[in-house]
Amino acid sequence: MPLQFASRLNNVETSAIRELFKLLGKPGIISFAGGFPDPAMFDVAGIQAAVNQALAHEPGGALQYGATEGYQPLREQLSAFMGSKGMAVTPGELIVTTGSQQALDLLGKTMISPGDKVIVEGPTFLATIQCFRLYGAELISAPVDAHGVDPEALEQLVAEHKPKFVYLIPTFGNPSGALLSLERRQKVLAMALKHNTLIVEDDPYGDLYFGEAPPPTLLALSADLPGCRDLIAYCGSLSKVLSPGLRVGWMTAQPALLANAVMCKQFSDAHTSTFAQATAAQYLKAGGMPATLAHMRAVYAERAQAMGRGLSRELGDAVEFTQPEGGLFFWARLTGAGGRTTDAAEFAKRAIDQGVAFVPGAPFYAAQPDLSSFRLSFATADVAKIEQGIQRLKLAL
Amino acid sequence: MPLQFASRLNNVETSAIRELFKLLGKPGIISFAGGFPDPAMFDVAGIQAAVNQALAHEPGGALQYGATEGYQPLREQLSAFMGSKGMAVTPGELIVTTGSQQALDLLGKTMISPGDKVIVEGPTFLATIQCFRLYGAELISAPVDAHGVDPEALEQLVAEHKPKFVYLIPTFGNPSGALLSLERRQKVLAMALKHNTLIVEDDPYGDLYFGEAPPPTLLALSADLPGCRDLIAYCGSLSKVLSPGLRVGWMTAQPALLANAVMCKQFSDAHTSTFAQATAAQYLKAGGMPATLAHMRAVYAERAQAMGRGLSRELGDAVEFTQPEGGLFFWARLTGAGGRTTDAAEFAKRAIDQGVAFVPGAPFYAAQPDLSSFRLSFATADVAKIEQGIQRLKLAL
Repeated sequence: MPLQFASRLNNVETSAIRELFKLLGKPGIISFAGGFPDPAMFDVAGIQAAVNQALAHEPGGALQYGATEGYQPLREQLSAFMGSKGMAVTPGELIVTTGSQQALDLLGKTMISPGDKVIVEGPTFLATIQCFRLYGAELISAPVDAHGVDPEALEQLVAEHKPKFVYLIPTFGNPSGALLSLERRQKVLAMALKHNTLIVEDDPYGDLYFGEAPPPTLLALSADLPGCRDLIAYCGSLSKVLSPGLRVGWMTAQPALLANAVMCKQFSDAHTSTFAQATAAQYLKAGGMPATLAHMRAVYAERAQAMGRGLSRELGDAVEFTQPEGGLFFWARLTGAGGRTTDAAEFAKRAIDQGVAFVPGAPFYAAQPDLSSFRLSFATADVAKIEQGIQRLKLAL
Repeated sequence: MPLQFASRLNNVETSAIRELFKLLGKPGIISFAGGFPDPAMFDVAGIQAAVNQALAHEPGGALQYGATEGYQPLREQLSAFMGSKGMAVTPGELIVTTGSQQALDLLGKTMISPGDKVIVEGPTFLATIQCFRLYGAELISAPVDAHGVDPEALEQLVAEHKPKFVYLIPTFGNPSGALLSLERRQKVLAMALKHNTLIVEDDPYGDLYFGEAPPPTLLALSADLPGCRDLIAYCGSLSKVLSPGLRVGWMTAQPALLANAVMCKQFSDAHTSTFAQATAAQYLKAGGMPATLAHMRAVYAERAQAMGRGLSRELGDAVEFTQPEGGLFFWARLTGAGGRTTDAAEFAKRAIDQGVAFVPGAPFYAAQPDLSSFRLSFATADVAKIEQGIQRLKLAL
C-alpha cells in the first residue's frame, strides 16, 4: 500500500524545475542556465590553508558538535565582514545557517502558518517560492522592473494583503539582475515602518558589482530610521563569493525572530558543519576576501559586457534587456519583433537543439508568469564561449 | 508591535532543554550530561589527509554546488559501509543529510500533517520529540525496557492509533542505552508488515558495541521478509564514529519517500556541505574506519565498565540500571531505597552543587515521564574522572 505523505507536499510543483535540470546534461552544450559561480574562481589554495589552520589550531571546534547559533569565531568574522559593508551587526545578532537556503527555510518554519500571505518579487528566486509554499504560504507577486521592485505597487499589495513578510533580493536579483535604486530602498523602508511589515532582504550577490558599489543594503539604511531595524531580516551567503560547497550562510533579525529561528534550526540540523564554519572563519581571518572579490568582479564584469554586446549585436530587437551592473544574471524578454517567437519555453527547446541552454522565465513567477521572459547566466562560460553561445541563440530564434 | 510567529511554534516546549544546557557551563564540573563523542578520539590526522585529497583531486566537487541527493562518491562509500554491516543498499537508495538530525526533519516534513500520530519510544531522543512536534505530530509513547521497545505493547498502540510511522533507536538507544533483542526485532518487523506501518530506524550508535556485534538492523532483517523492506526508513550518521562537526548523516527509504525527502531537502538547505561530504568520502575510501572504530569501542567499553562498577559500589541499591552493551549512555532510576530521593530533577540540582552534571530523564518522554529516571554519558570523561564524578554523585544522593 503506498504511503500517505504530508499534505504540505500538495502545495509544491517541482516538475518545471526537474525539466530545467534535465536540460543541463547534454554533452557539448554551452550553459547559460545555472545559478552557479565559476569553479575556476574558487580560491582552492586559500581554502586549503584555512582548513589546515582550523585543524591545527582548533580541531575540537572544527570537528565536535557546536552551538546551533554558529561557531563563535565565524560569527565574529561575519560581523566584521558586514561591518566593512556598512552594516553594524554584532556577532550575537547573527546566526550561521547551512547556506542562505536554510535561512529561508527557517524564516518559513518560524513565521509562516498555513494560509499566511507572503509577498515576493515577480520574478523571484525559484527555491524561495517552493520553500515558503511548503510551509503553506500563499504567495503574492509584486512587479519588478530594471530598478527593482515597484515601491508604490508593493505598498498597495501590503495594504491589501497584510502579508507575514515581504521577501526581496534588492541587489542584483535572481533572476531579474535588477538593482533596487536608493530612492526605492528608502521608499520600501518607509513603507515597512508605516505598515509594520517585516522585510526579508536576501543578499547573496551584493558583493559582485562591476562598477561602483551598489547603494547601502536595506539593513544598513534601516539604522537611520528609528524602529526600522527590527523590521529587517537580512540573509547573507558565502556561496557566490567563496564556495557554495561550504554551505555557509547567515541571518540577522530582531532578537525574538532570531531566537525562534535558532530553536527551529536545533531540530532541523542541530548546527551548520563546524568543519566548514571553522574553515570559513580562518579564510576570512586570513584577509584574502578583498582580493578574491576584486578578481571575481573583474572576471564577471567582462563576461557580462560580452554577453550584453553579443545579445544586442546578434539578436537585435528580438530581445530586450537591461545591462546588469552586478550579480550573475541577464533577465531578458522576447519582443516578437520580425514575427519571431515570444514563447521563451519554445525558444529554450530550440536553443537546446542548437547546443545552448538557458532557463525560461515562467517558473520564477509565483503568479502571472511572463511567458516571454528568460534568464541567462554569464558566470560559468568564458568570453569565447559566451560569444559562441549567443551565435547558437541566434540560430534558435 | 511584536511579530506574530507561526502557529507550529506553539507545539514545542524548549525550556527544559535550555535548562539542561545551562547546567553544563559551570567551571570544574565533571559532565556526564552531554550526548557528545570524546573529541580526543577524533582522527584529526586522518581527516586532514582526507580533506587534502578532496581539495587536490576534486576541488570542483568539494567546493561547488552539488546534487541534493548527496555527493556520489560519498553515497558509494556509505553504500559499501552499510554493506559491510549486512545492509544491502545501493548508492542510489540512500541520500546524504546534514547530520541524521536532518533526516528526522525531512521525515517530519515529508510525512507528518498536523494532527498525525507518531509512535516513539518512552524515553526517546529529545530532539526527535521537538522535531516531529514542530510538524504538528501528536506523539504516542511506547514502553521500553532493557531489551528495547516492548513489541506487544507497540503493536497494541499501532492498532489503536494507526500512526504515520513508528520511530525507534533499536541499538543502544538514546537515552535508554537499550539493545533491542533479535527476537523483538523480528516481532517488530512482523508487526510492521501486518499493520503496513512505516518504521523509522535511527542508528547512530550501532557501531559502538563493546562485546560481540549487535543483532542485524531492522533494515538488514527486513530483506528476508517479502514486502518489509519498503516499510523501513533507516537513518545513519558519521557523528558518533568520525566527527559530528562534519554534519554527515544519511537516510535510506522506499523510492517514493526518498524522492519526496530530496524535494524537501532541496528547499531546506539545497544540499549537505560538499566540502564535508568529499572529506568524509576520502576518509572512508582511505580505509581508516575499522581501526578508528576498534579504538573507540575499546575506550568506551572501559569507561562503561568503570561507570557501571562505580555506580554499583557507590550508590548501591539507591539506583537501578542495566549495564549497556554499547553506545554512549547509562539509563538509571532512583529507587528511593533507604528513604533517599526518587526525584531525578532534584538529584540533578544537588549533583551540580557537588560538581557533577547529568540529565534528568523527564524531557526524554513524549508522555508519562518517569520522574525518577536519569541519563549518564560515559563518553567524554576518562576513567579517573568517571570515578571522581561518581563520588560526587554519592555525595549528592
